[in-house]
Amino acid sequence: MPEAPALDAAGLRSVADHTSYLLSLVEPLRPFGMSLLDAWDQVVCEDIDSMINVPPNSTAKVEGYAVRAADLLDEDGHLAEPLEVVEADVERLPSGAAVVVAPGDVLPRGANAVLPATFGSLADGRIRLIEKVAAGEYVRAAGEHLKVGTRLLSEGEILDDRSIGLLAGSGLDKVMVRPRPRVVVVSSGDNLVDPGMGVEHGQATDANSFMIAAAAKAAGATVFRVAVHSNDRAEILQTITDQLIRADLVISTSGGKREDYETVADVMQEIGLVDTVNVAMSPGRTQTFGLVGEDRVPMLMLPGNPVSAYVSFQAFARPLIRQLMGAPTTHRAVRAIASHSMRSMIGQLHLLRGRVTSEGSVRQVEAVSMPHALGELAESNALIVLDERVEQVRAGEAVKVWLLDED
Amino acid sequence: MPEAPALDAAGLRSVADHTSYLLSLVEPLRPFGMSLLDAWDQVVCEDIDSMINVPPNSTAKVEGYAVRAADLLDEDGHLAEPLEVVEADVERLPSGAAVVVAPGDVLPRGANAVLPATFGSLADGRIRLIEKVAAGEYVRAAGEHLKVGTRLLSEGEILDDRSIGLLAGSGLDKVMVRPRPRVVVVSSGDNLVDPGMGVEHGQATDANSFMIAAAAKAAGATVFRVAVHSNDRAEILQTITDQLIRADLVISTSGGKREDYETVADVMQEIGLVDTVNVAMSPGRTQTFGLVGEDRVPMLMLPGNPVSAYVSFQAFARPLIRQLMGAPTTHRAVRAIASHSMRSMIGQLHLLRGRVTSEGSVRQVEAVSMPHALGELAESNALIVLDERVEQVRAGEAVKVWLLDED
Repeated sequence: MPEAPALDAAGLRSVADHTSYLLSLVEPLRPFGMSLLDAWDQVVCEDIDSMINVPPNSTAKVEGYAVRAADLLDEDGHLAEPLEVVEADVERLPSGAAVVVAPGDVLPRGANAVLPATFGSLADGRIRLIEKVAAGEYVRAAGEHLKVGTRLLSEGEILDDRSIGLLAGSGLDKVMVRPRPRVVVVSSGDNLVDPGMGVEHGQATDANSFMIAAAAKAAGATVFRVAVHSNDRAEILQTITDQLIRADLVISTSGGKREDYETVADVMQEIGLVDTVNVAMSPGRTQTFGLVGEDRVPMLMLPGNPVSAYVSFQAFARPLIRQLMGAPTTHRAVRAIASHSMRSMIGQLHLLRGRVTSEGSVRQVEAVSMPHALGELAESNALIVLDERVEQVRAGEAVKVWLLDED
Repeated sequence: MPEAPALDAAGLRSVADHTSYLLSLVEPLRPFGMSLLDAWDQVVCEDIDSMINVPPNSTAKVEGYAVRAADLLDEDGHLAEPLEVVEADVERLPSGAAVVVAPGDVLPRGANAVLPATFGSLADGRIRLIEKVAAGEYVRAAGEHLKVGTRLLSEGEILDDRSIGLLAGSGLDKVMVRPRPRVVVVSSGDNLVDPGMGVEHGQATDANSFMIAAAAKAAGATVFRVAVHSNDRAEILQTITDQLIRADLVISTSGGKREDYETVADVMQEIGLVDTVNVAMSPGRTQTFGLVGEDRVPMLMLPGNPVSAYVSFQAFARPLIRQLMGAPTTHRAVRAIASHSMRSMIGQLHLLRGRVTSEGSVRQVEAVSMPHALGELAESNALIVLDERVEQVRAGEAVKVWLLDED
């Protein structure tokens, strides 16, 4: 593994250091040309300029003659000699010539003005000038609404429905975006069974892999969940290596038994480069990350406790998924007023489960604490971020929270 | 068609009346049991109570004897006669009996307390009591963290990642949700070509159907876009009837020529019940809605002008899609400070294209007006709602806006 950040005096890596270390190990996916509707709601990876004019051609606004304005005056500034009327399908308007046009007719190349019918008198295929016009007069110019080269969309913008309309109307059918990251959630642990199956004594239903798979969807990934409810090293190794072909990121979850975690860690060591570290974070102190398989696919192992797993996901997996997407990796952080006092520990980033409520424009947050870990998470809609310098927050003080839902 | 709301003195139907009329003609889709991960981010259509206890069984906290607390005292309140030790695999603990337990062991049925080893002395298969315990003492009770019957999720809530964890952990693998509405966008107009193709004189690329298909995705639908770039009545009829089998809602878009609109309206008349009305709204005055085919599939025809089409979508199609989803049909309405004065007409709901910007907690909005309709929409992120009683808004006054994006 590339050199890791230094540890603090307590032998811990800060959350900020761990996050930036992991992000330095993962590159955004390569963009490709995706059809407009499939690319909806994705981040655009190119500046897009119009390749067309709207309207596409200059047209006559009035009945009359398409002319070159410069032909209308002689060297002395007087009205020039009569113009010769030529066929409308002329490739390019010759000097000294004119073409009869009706309103809406496309001007021939070379013409840059329309002489209204009343500004000249037509006889014997020639127009004698009565009045002049300047370049552009009585013309609805090509590109009046949209000019070739106008910036339609900039790199980094989200492709919304109106932008899709603008691009389609400009003749574009594809746009460079990154594919959705493919995240494979691998669930292991020999005491786990899938929900919907009967649970025998000593078994538990697998909740973590479903919760984390859904969280990865919420972060923007395409998710595959694979369960290997076993503790067999060879079986777990086979399952993970089988999945690498379709994974941009592997996330492993387990049932919370120490040996589940250790077996997966052993497998990671066998097939890749691994960083195992204690992070100055609570919960989620033990963090294991690797680059596994021949292609060095990033793999994050989440702790077995549901709260630790979910908090670790939000702290580290979500930024990795966003990095793969080429999207901002920062959290949806806002400030909220603490409803009660909260305690933390100096030197640790503490991520409390919280429930944010809004009254008018003011957000309040209270910590959620329940004996049932999954119930506690389900009651929460935010993580309260008490950073390394915080020992106590008093009721009524503002705290930073990460919102867990998009709305 | 069912009876339509009355028109006003000017022969117009109000936007509120038209909206509620259309909503009265469309029912939410029938919910079904969907697997947890597929149902992520959907509205749950049932109250879900836990069918399990967590922990599932009562277990001993200490080494000792599982007992019935009532057996420990005699009628006079003295310590009772010695208890008989029986096998641990007893189906139900007999009265006057005890079972040897280690910490974590499941108590036999009938037992409701653990007598610590030091509270009795064991000899000849019998325990002589030294101290008593009350019911529940030294027991980690079944359901201490989650009891059978506890409400896990209520009808109308969104299934987020944490709720998925809670349901999975409670042994549930399916949840009742409504399927995503299937919206078929049918594009017609003989001067339209798909983006990416060359455009000849008199042709335009089809922007509306792409924009509206993306808007339907944003509203939560599964979208199919079908182009019949023709004006042939039989061909359009065939295309629409072919699509009805997979459509919960058909939306028709066109290229803005009067005859495009009329051909589709004729087809709707031929295969369904149709409501055509002038609505007191600008833009989007002419509105055509029908119930078409044998199954009376709802079908909305959008105007050909891109701005009118998009505004009509937001006003009427989005609420219909949300109705099919069983989700709130109201708009994401907020208030914003007008950056400049705006004019409207009494008796009409005016939906200006607007750009909302936020400074701190204050939202400002300015109207966007550009000669290029698609460019104007792409610049906008809101619709400014000037209702029927508004003639003028002054700079600095608050106006209602509908936000167009989820974030």
